[in-house]
Amino acid sequence: MTTVAAYAVPAPKAPLERTTIERRPVGESDVLIDIKFAGICHSDIHQAREGWGEAMFPMVPGHEIAGVVTEVGPGVTKFAVGDRVGVGCMVDSCRECDNCKAGQEQYCTGGGMVGTYNALDKNGEPTYGGYARAIVVDENYVVRIPDGLALDVAAPLLCAGITTYSPLKHWNAGPGKKVAVLGMGGLGHMAVKIAHALGAEVTVLSQSLRKKDDGLKLGADHYYATSDPKTFEELAGSFDLILSTVSAPLDFGAFLSLLRTDGALVNVGAPEEPISLNLFSVINNRKTLAGSMIGGIAETQEMLDFCAAHGFGAEIELIAAEEINEAYERVLNSDVRYRFVIDTATI
Amino acid sequence: MTTVAAYAVPAPKAPLERTTIERRPVGESDVLIDIKFAGICHSDIHQAREGWGEAMFPMVPGHEIAGVVTEVGPGVTKFAVGDRVGVGCMVDSCRECDNCKAGQEQYCTGGGMVGTYNALDKNGEPTYGGYARAIVVDENYVVRIPDGLALDVAAPLLCAGITTYSPLKHWNAGPGKKVAVLGMGGLGHMAVKIAHALGAEVTVLSQSLRKKDDGLKLGADHYYATSDPKTFEELAGSFDLILSTVSAPLDFGAFLSLLRTDGALVNVGAPEEPISLNLFSVINNRKTLAGSMIGGIAETQEMLDFCAAHGFGAEIELIAAEEINEAYERVLNSDVRYRFVIDTATI
Repeated sequence: MTTVAAYAVPAPKAPLERTTIERRPVGESDVLIDIKFAGICHSDIHQAREGWGEAMFPMVPGHEIAGVVTEVGPGVTKFAVGDRVGVGCMVDSCRECDNCKAGQEQYCTGGGMVGTYNALDKNGEPTYGGYARAIVVDENYVVRIPDGLALDVAAPLLCAGITTYSPLKHWNAGPGKKVAVLGMGGLGHMAVKIAHALGAEVTVLSQSLRKKDDGLKLGADHYYATSDPKTFEELAGSFDLILSTVSAPLDFGAFLSLLRTDGALVNVGAPEEPISLNLFSVINNRKTLAGSMIGGIAETQEMLDFCAAHGFGAEIELIAAEEINEAYERVLNSDVRYRFVIDTATI
Repeated sequence: MTTVAAYAVPAPKAPLERTTIERRPVGESDVLIDIKFAGICHSDIHQAREGWGEAMFPMVPGHEIAGVVTEVGPGVTKFAVGDRVGVGCMVDSCRECDNCKAGQEQYCTGGGMVGTYNALDKNGEPTYGGYARAIVVDENYVVRIPDGLALDVAAPLLCAGITTYSPLKHWNAGPGKKVAVLGMGGLGHMAVKIAHALGAEVTVLSQSLRKKDDGLKLGADHYYATSDPKTFEELAGSFDLILSTVSAPLDFGAFLSLLRTDGALVNVGAPEEPISLNLFSVINNRKTLAGSMIGGIAETQEMLDFCAAHGFGAEIELIAAEEINEAYERVLNSDVRYRFVIDTATI
């Protein structure tokens, strides 16, 4: 066991505070990672405040982890000490179900993926996430961060990157396709970069035009305010794909009306409350309302390689650990451009 | 103009009564059809009672029309007097938009398809449907009923047949696929026949087991009652496709839980009220909630040929025109096996 400094939420809705946690000994196929940077994802806040239901405390959030390998188990074949690596939203899964075998470990049907935090591992021990100085993870759930991608801007790719890359690929964002990105936050800004790099024509749909300059700079071709009713008239029937990164409740009928025949509105943001939907919104013009959750391990590696090849990571604001609580409030106020990343040396 | 006997709804929610209507003169590309049979679709009742919003009265419902051509316009090339033909849910569309050109006239974006009734045609005249002795329709919106398919059992195919055939084909129902049909009514019983004929493994999900014998006889491999909570445990994660033919409100989360990863719940039934949906139901395992509306003209012809090749039409109860009001009540009580068809000679 290794004692590690961390930032934890001691109880539901409580502020985070510095503490120590124990990491398991490095097992046969484990790697010990010296965490350098950890992104703050909106879902950290949902879970810390039990917005998505009952959670486990104390909680060490963080599933956007970038660091360096400092020790490997005797059976490890993929990584060596000194390797630059990342860990995302999961640290294990059954490895035997059809989905695991197909590289879709995030959809494991053999008990479900083991979350990087707020979960129990196969030994029944709680998992603790990336707001910590180190973590021990089975090598099969670790990815390599390509040279040329700095660790700090790579960290958010482990959730915000893969969460948007996977559905953009699955729903064929690319040349000739009109893709709208709904929400210009941590996920949204990555969706813009990735959809643009995939060759799609990209439109940002944001509440206001406040971040328009940034959006265009990151690769958007068009930028509209959803607070303006004219947006819905002008863009009616336009898009092949709308990727909603928003976790606030929306008028889904209005957004479905922006799709072409056979278009898809794919949700990667998750409102805490059920949504209301008139089914005629999907029956007319055979539309789809779908969802997508992160991506598999191999696809996460593919996404990192893709981002490195296109020369981009996330846009970040680097903070010290003592600023986490303030950062949470700023995330809730959409006041971050575009991802807070904790310098874990400050823990 | 031709004066034609018909059954009409004089005002919202009023009972149907016998009347006469005028049909337009047979134009250049029109055919005059002596209607022999007209199916009663649940959507006739939705519209007659304004369940789907404001409607036009007097209304002559009926969009499952089978008959014989008795006159053709001078420019008609596809049909001759004596041909056995059908008319479904639309009698025109813009013919110029991408969807019309692609044979998806039902999704016409150039003003929308012109409904067979409860609509205005291009001259601004109200359209009247199939509960009548005759109808005049542009030949491009008429299909041929293959020899060997009796006109009475063919009539319901014009809506119930194509409405289920089109999504079953679009979502790849076929060998190796597990398809559930939700609801065992007019649409549902056709979905069972068609999905079975396409080679899929077919499960009926019906409120009770009351119609189980029929379901198995029509081609279902399995039959479950949705009133039994064990059904949802046993079938969790089973289906590639669920086709919902139900227009009552459902627990959509429960039905989405029956889908495999990447599965689709496709609605062809349309509840009058908005549904409530927790988006985690689609985010987990990347599921789809979609809709589909009838099918295009060419696809309707394909469907008729498919049914004829497989030797089936709809299961029907033939009624006289004076029984229509009673039949409406029985449809609302799910008391029909499986489609009422009006013998229009009795009008």
